[in-house]
Amino acid sequence: MIKDNLKEIRTPVITELDEFEKIFKDSLKSKVGLVDLVTKFILKQKGKKIRPLLVLLSAQLSGGVTRRSYRGASLVELLHTATLVHDDVVDGAEKRRGFPSINAIWKNKISVLMGDYLLSRGLLLAVEADDFDFLKVITSTVKRMSEGELLQIGKTRRLNIDEETYFRIISDKTASLLSTCCEIGALSASNNLKYIVAMREYGENLGMAFQIRDDILDYVGKSKLIGKPLGADIKDKKITLPLIHALSIANKSEAKEIIGYLKNGNKNPKVNEIIEFVKGRNGIEYSLKIAEGFALKAKASLNVFPDSASKTSLNNLVNFVVNRSN
Amino acid sequence: MIKDNLKEIRTPVITELDEFEKIFKDSLKSKVGLVDLVTKFILKQKGKKIRPLLVLLSAQLSGGVTRRSYRGASLVELLHTATLVHDDVVDGAEKRRGFPSINAIWKNKISVLMGDYLLSRGLLLAVEADDFDFLKVITSTVKRMSEGELLQIGKTRRLNIDEETYFRIISDKTASLLSTCCEIGALSASNNLKYIVAMREYGENLGMAFQIRDDILDYVGKSKLIGKPLGADIKDKKITLPLIHALSIANKSEAKEIIGYLKNGNKNPKVNEIIEFVKGRNGIEYSLKIAEGFALKAKASLNVFPDSASKTSLNNLVNFVVNRSN
Repeated sequence: MIKDNLKEIRTPVITELDEFEKIFKDSLKSKVGLVDLVTKFILKQKGKKIRPLLVLLSAQLSGGVTRRSYRGASLVELLHTATLVHDDVVDGAEKRRGFPSINAIWKNKISVLMGDYLLSRGLLLAVEADDFDFLKVITSTVKRMSEGELLQIGKTRRLNIDEETYFRIISDKTASLLSTCCEIGALSASNNLKYIVAMREYGENLGMAFQIRDDILDYVGKSKLIGKPLGADIKDKKITLPLIHALSIANKSEAKEIIGYLKNGNKNPKVNEIIEFVKGRNGIEYSLKIAEGFALKAKASLNVFPDSASKTSLNNLVNFVVNRSN
Repeated sequence: MIKDNLKEIRTPVITELDEFEKIFKDSLKSKVGLVDLVTKFILKQKGKKIRPLLVLLSAQLSGGVTRRSYRGASLVELLHTATLVHDDVVDGAEKRRGFPSINAIWKNKISVLMGDYLLSRGLLLAVEADDFDFLKVITSTVKRMSEGELLQIGKTRRLNIDEETYFRIISDKTASLLSTCCEIGALSASNNLKYIVAMREYGENLGMAFQIRDDILDYVGKSKLIGKPLGADIKDKKITLPLIHALSIANKSEAKEIIGYLKNGNKNPKVNEIIEFVKGRNGIEYSLKIAEGFALKAKASLNVFPDSASKTSLNNLVNFVVNRSN
């Protein structure tokens, strides 16, 4: 049986995750009342903490969790939280992790500033400790993430996007940060370049699989927990892998019709037609196969490491990502 | 006669400013079409480029402009541009430097992402060249700037703000970046700690004078060029030094009445009453005196340097800042 349960995956670093929570909480303290108010609200929304988990497992696998690993985990979680807060403005999203988004409560003003604050807070953790290797990795990630989102917006407006562009977008906007988590974990534990490169590649491929799975879920439905309804991407006119594949094998007139449906945008009455079109053209199966390809690559990257509990967890995390339903 | 003309102030680094323009333009190039489109639009809006000017003059005064000085100048201008783009979201501003704001044209989505992109682009300039001393200074500045704005928003809502809090806000949100410009300029030219500290203090005091002058202009009127109407801060319920002073010497019932007027917010019919109250209580003269105090401190910091054209320019820049009408 495939163990894809997150609780089991966390087991090898369960004490370390608790320690991380404390350090993370401390790093968020501020003398400015409003900042403290917003961060307390953020801390209440317990996410899956996939990114700190990746840092800690990668560190353990590469030689052992160190003080620097905790700093790295806080850094990536701060950056991730900053992007969530900024995404709230970006998407006009009203819910995030089931809670009303920061934006809905405190408006755009504060969301933008809080995102900037959280990002700089994360960078400062690294700056203050002279972790310049972390800074190199994280700064280029921030650039890739914003560039990836902007590429997606640009392409979405013109409704033309091919597989190559799609892979570039999801590599920049999603895989880059997961790759950075794993690289930072390895950097915090070892200076063996073979390990560092292996973990970076594991994270990149895990991230690709993660995002493709996410895009598939828009067509097959997510657990209600996440609050994101079926077809949300379609309503945003986002063209993702399942649709790209279906369009690529449809005939011209049919493809044109579907693109026409897509233009409806927000209150799209043709969402079901688009979903059925994608399913009928094997868009789901095809995307799953591609996700599994990335999953295999991620697992293969771990071959340089001897077997261990953290290696098993990282392998199981790949299964979790590809099979998750939320 | 006091020379407060920006053109004259620029003279000692006029060739260097041209060189900076080229490097800055290059640093903005991106392979993502949408990013390129927005940056071209940004480049068209020629600002005063006070921040790069500060870096270059500080570098020249501290020993001479170097390759690192240009990088520093690009870094601070990228950061400044990022905050302008983010401010557009923050303020819901429709005009910026006389142009429609990025936000009005491309909506919040793109503004937030472009701000993040520009910030990371700036940090990457320093990261790629191993300018870790720049990173230390700039990261803490990003944190101070967002914290300062958030402190102002928090205090604005409760309409209680004293002089001490006001100075903390403007030091964080405005003076920190000008101080950083001067410190980075000095760092790029010298490792003489006396020079570095002197330039940092010059920038801090210049920034304080700059912001107080800006806040005074809200009461006495700005040149039409900038497009910001009289009383804009009052409509935003922002309590700045002229009003803080006037309130502090008014009797309780009068102060209560004025605070009541302030609550009207955006379409405030009592703007003129508030302006007259501030003028009647010497809020303008008092604030000018405080600004001049900071101006004197800024000039005094330059005493450690021998006389030179760049020293004269930095002295004249102080005059310009305190006397400007836009």
